Amino acid sequence: MEQGTRKRRSGGRNRAKQAQSAPVRTPDYRQLRHPFRPQNVFSDDEVIAIHKTALRVLEELGIKVLLPEAREIFAKAGATVDDQMVFIGKDIVTDALRTAPASIPISAVNLARAQTYEEGALIFMAGAGCPNATDYKRGRRPGDLKAFTETLKLVQSFDVVHLLSPTTEPQDIPVHLRHYAMTRTQMEYCDKPMFAYARGRKQVQQNFEMVQLGLNLSDADFAASTWITTVINSNSPRLLDNPMAQGIIDYARAGQMPIITPFCLAGAMAPITVSGALALQHAEALACIALSQLARAGAPVSYGGFSSNVDMKSGSPAFGTPEHMKMQIGAGQLARHIGLPWRSAAGAASNIADAQGATESVNGLWGALMANATLTVHSAGWLEGGLSFGYEKFITDIEAMQTLAEMCVQPKASDAEIGFDALADVQPGGHFFATEHTMERYAEAFYAPIVADLNNYGAWEEAGAITADRRATAVWEQALDSYTQPPTGEPVADRLAEYIEKAPNDGGAPVLE
Amino acid sequence: MEQGTRKRRSGGRNRAKQAQSAPVRTPDYRQLRHPFRPQNVFSDDEVIAIHKTALRVLEELGIKVLLPEAREIFAKAGATVDDQMVFIGKDIVTDALRTAPASIPISAVNLARAQTYEEGALIFMAGAGCPNATDYKRGRRPGDLKAFTETLKLVQSFDVVHLLSPTTEPQDIPVHLRHYAMTRTQMEYCDKPMFAYARGRKQVQQNFEMVQLGLNLSDADFAASTWITTVINSNSPRLLDNPMAQGIIDYARAGQMPIITPFCLAGAMAPITVSGALALQHAEALACIALSQLARAGAPVSYGGFSSNVDMKSGSPAFGTPEHMKMQIGAGQLARHIGLPWRSAAGAASNIADAQGATESVNGLWGALMANATLTVHSAGWLEGGLSFGYEKFITDIEAMQTLAEMCVQPKASDAEIGFDALADVQPGGHFFATEHTMERYAEAFYAPIVADLNNYGAWEEAGAITADRRATAVWEQALDSYTQPPTGEPVADRLAEYIEKAPNDGGAPVLE
Repeated sequence: MEQGTRKRRSGGRNRAKQAQSAPVRTPDYRQLRHPFRPQNVFSDDEVIAIHKTALRVLEELGIKVLLPEAREIFAKAGATVDDQMVFIGKDIVTDALRTAPASIPISAVNLARAQTYEEGALIFMAGAGCPNATDYKRGRRPGDLKAFTETLKLVQSFDVVHLLSPTTEPQDIPVHLRHYAMTRTQMEYCDKPMFAYARGRKQVQQNFEMVQLGLNLSDADFAASTWITTVINSNSPRLLDNPMAQGIIDYARAGQMPIITPFCLAGAMAPITVSGALALQHAEALACIALSQLARAGAPVSYGGFSSNVDMKSGSPAFGTPEHMKMQIGAGQLARHIGLPWRSAAGAASNIADAQGATESVNGLWGALMANATLTVHSAGWLEGGLSFGYEKFITDIEAMQTLAEMCVQPKASDAEIGFDALADVQPGGHFFATEHTMERYAEAFYAPIVADLNNYGAWEEAGAITADRRATAVWEQALDSYTQPPTGEPVADRLAEYIEKAPNDGGAPVLE
Repeated sequence: MEQGTRKRRSGGRNRAKQAQSAPVRTPDYRQLRHPFRPQNVFSDDEVIAIHKTALRVLEELGIKVLLPEAREIFAKAGATVDDQMVFIGKDIVTDALRTAPASIPISAVNLARAQTYEEGALIFMAGAGCPNATDYKRGRRPGDLKAFTETLKLVQSFDVVHLLSPTTEPQDIPVHLRHYAMTRTQMEYCDKPMFAYARGRKQVQQNFEMVQLGLNLSDADFAASTWITTVINSNSPRLLDNPMAQGIIDYARAGQMPIITPFCLAGAMAPITVSGALALQHAEALACIALSQLARAGAPVSYGGFSSNVDMKSGSPAFGTPEHMKMQIGAGQLARHIGLPWRSAAGAASNIADAQGATESVNGLWGALMANATLTVHSAGWLEGGLSFGYEKFITDIEAMQTLAEMCVQPKASDAEIGFDALADVQPGGHFFATEHTMERYAEAFYAPIVADLNNYGAWEEAGAITADRRATAVWEQALDSYTQPPTGEPVADRLAEYIEKAPNDGGAPVLE
């Protein structure tokens, strides 16, 4: 401890006593706006240079597009198509950027969960697409419907997660039937904006049908807002595969939002420099945005990317690194340059919810804040670079996210808040426990941690010297215990029952390769 | 993992192979400048309101000053003194702010370790003042000279720690003799700017004498720069005790820098609001700065504070919380308002180097970046809210600090860096492992982690499923094994030997109560 402050450990008893009878603090994390001004890693000229390089890449080097339908769309717009290569002139890109919307309404069955996807919004999505699930009760195992359902219930339980995600893959369900279960589960147990994979036209259309049917939406209501999003990963470098291209087209035509996400690992599938990896990411994202706007001008689409570096020792992707954060901030500059809302990502390469995992994820979250990312994917529970969804990791990440969400509320500094009278009330060396200024505010004053243990060493040791990740087990168990199904859950499931029951008889919907 | 990116796990082998023969990356963390623009939590008007309230506190409520000599100095300058209470008019404060330097040279026996203490500088100090030490080899125990020496060797080993600190208290040495050992140890084993406690005039003077003697400095050389710093904690609310007041006076007269640090725990020793706690912190800091400038106009002094909130459940101090970060950022606004460099603090309340500890410390580090703090104290190794110095925590924190230090280097975006030619070289779906653009840069491209394990789950599990904190044990052991005494160490120790040998015969230097 610092010198001259020895008494600071004493005197907390009053507070603790008061707290036991205090009303529970209920902060509102449902709609957040970025608390910090965006930061820069590049000069304006450098941003322009990266943008111009990306345009040159598309025009001169081209992008390989596997789907004939997508190539035809590009060709019709004037792009040069040579076998599977598509060379996209900058006029096509410029036109697309003119029609792509800067503000996109995202709806949910619960109106209080709606979001406006635009610059300044701060939206979180939990870990997505993990083939495995990890928790300390059952260990690490392949994702199944049970884990998918449980993790969605956890996502539903914390307001700081705004959009649903395919947390962990329900691999116990054949892939041609999986989307029925994934979409139904989201609607039955949650009331937040939904997510679906783009794995071919039939699955995509059926997902749209299920949303409309389940939420009882007219065609016009469904088309008027984004009810469901999908992540579109280009296959860096410069390749757009069949399901991704088709997903862009189908989501655009249905007015639903694809989240464009080149995954550019500097030094592997992208140039080794931050600016080079971003030039590639930007080029691929622009190509996808162009396809969406050519499929339907004005269709909702999210710019974005998920770029980081590889670890030089293991060759594995690394996250929460300086390079990752520089790419987040640089991507934010590019997004503002083209005037579109965008997605970034935070997550951990760590295999467990330890200090490494926390450092990686918290850095990624701060990087997203510095970058003013509209959406931060993989914000909670993303272990092993996405190979597993960690229940405990989810909880320790939620703590970090809630801490940052609290930063969205600026402290006040009115005379009453500063409290000169309180300062006058307390004698030198005294304390503020019982002042009116304190009593009026103590119930709501501070963030209340969900997993952090503030007990002193002795009390902590006596309770078993349990680390935060181990304590997190009880927190997610408790969250599942106290999970409440939203009132929309049962009616939605009823409306979907017949559709889903009949679907397998028609052979389900095969995945497009 | 995201869809469409399945191949990203393959292909790292080339990189890994190259890395084994790669030259070691040697980034320079010795002199850092803040990479980010400062952020705000208050409007300009609110900053002025807090500042004015602080002036009113000093003028109307006064501050209790135990040391008669300090009261006399204040009285001579026109302050009203009533018994032990000193009422400081705002003219006295304004005059002090006029003479307090905005840029302070901090020197060290190794010139490469010198710092300029001013706005924009980013300076880190490790955990300070911990009564205990914790590591996984020997457990938690009261600090002793061995732990103090070891932790200073660790501090010396990482360039990202810029100033020495009283890491852990050598309690095996009687307090009237302890300063001899603490000062000698710093000079014998380190070559960075030094630290000493202000525990009474005789100790302070002897520390100055030892620095001059050990480093062979003339009176003029010693007085021309800050060679040694001390932390001055006011005893919030509104009390300045004897050793602290005397320390300010003595450091001012010797031209050495006191780091003013009210420790204002909102809801306990300070008002429960962010603005109220900051008003108190600011008032106390201004009183201390005034005393320093009255003792010697133009004397080096650091503005600062360490404010956070208490946990409502346990009554314990909490760190890395939203309130802590808001106070960091608000303190930065106040520092810029009065135009002085300043200290903040990052650290953990956690009892161990787990996810909680990492989240707390990393948040505190980011808060200091957002606040543009000149100096961030307790940046590494500070466990249990300062009650123990953790060796493993030191290592996991160093990783976070080095990651942030890397952010000080902006990525480049010249044509060569972006690498259009490299983009042209690699076919769609290919990789950049062997491109010239990669080969030229791979050795220096990315931050190389010291404790993060990027291996996949299987390899990690096979190696024992060891968490980051457990891996950190080997890292600090290795750092101690490869620790090299700076060339100045032996000669300095020789020069001090006689002084220190004789000191106990004179009764040492008793602590001022």
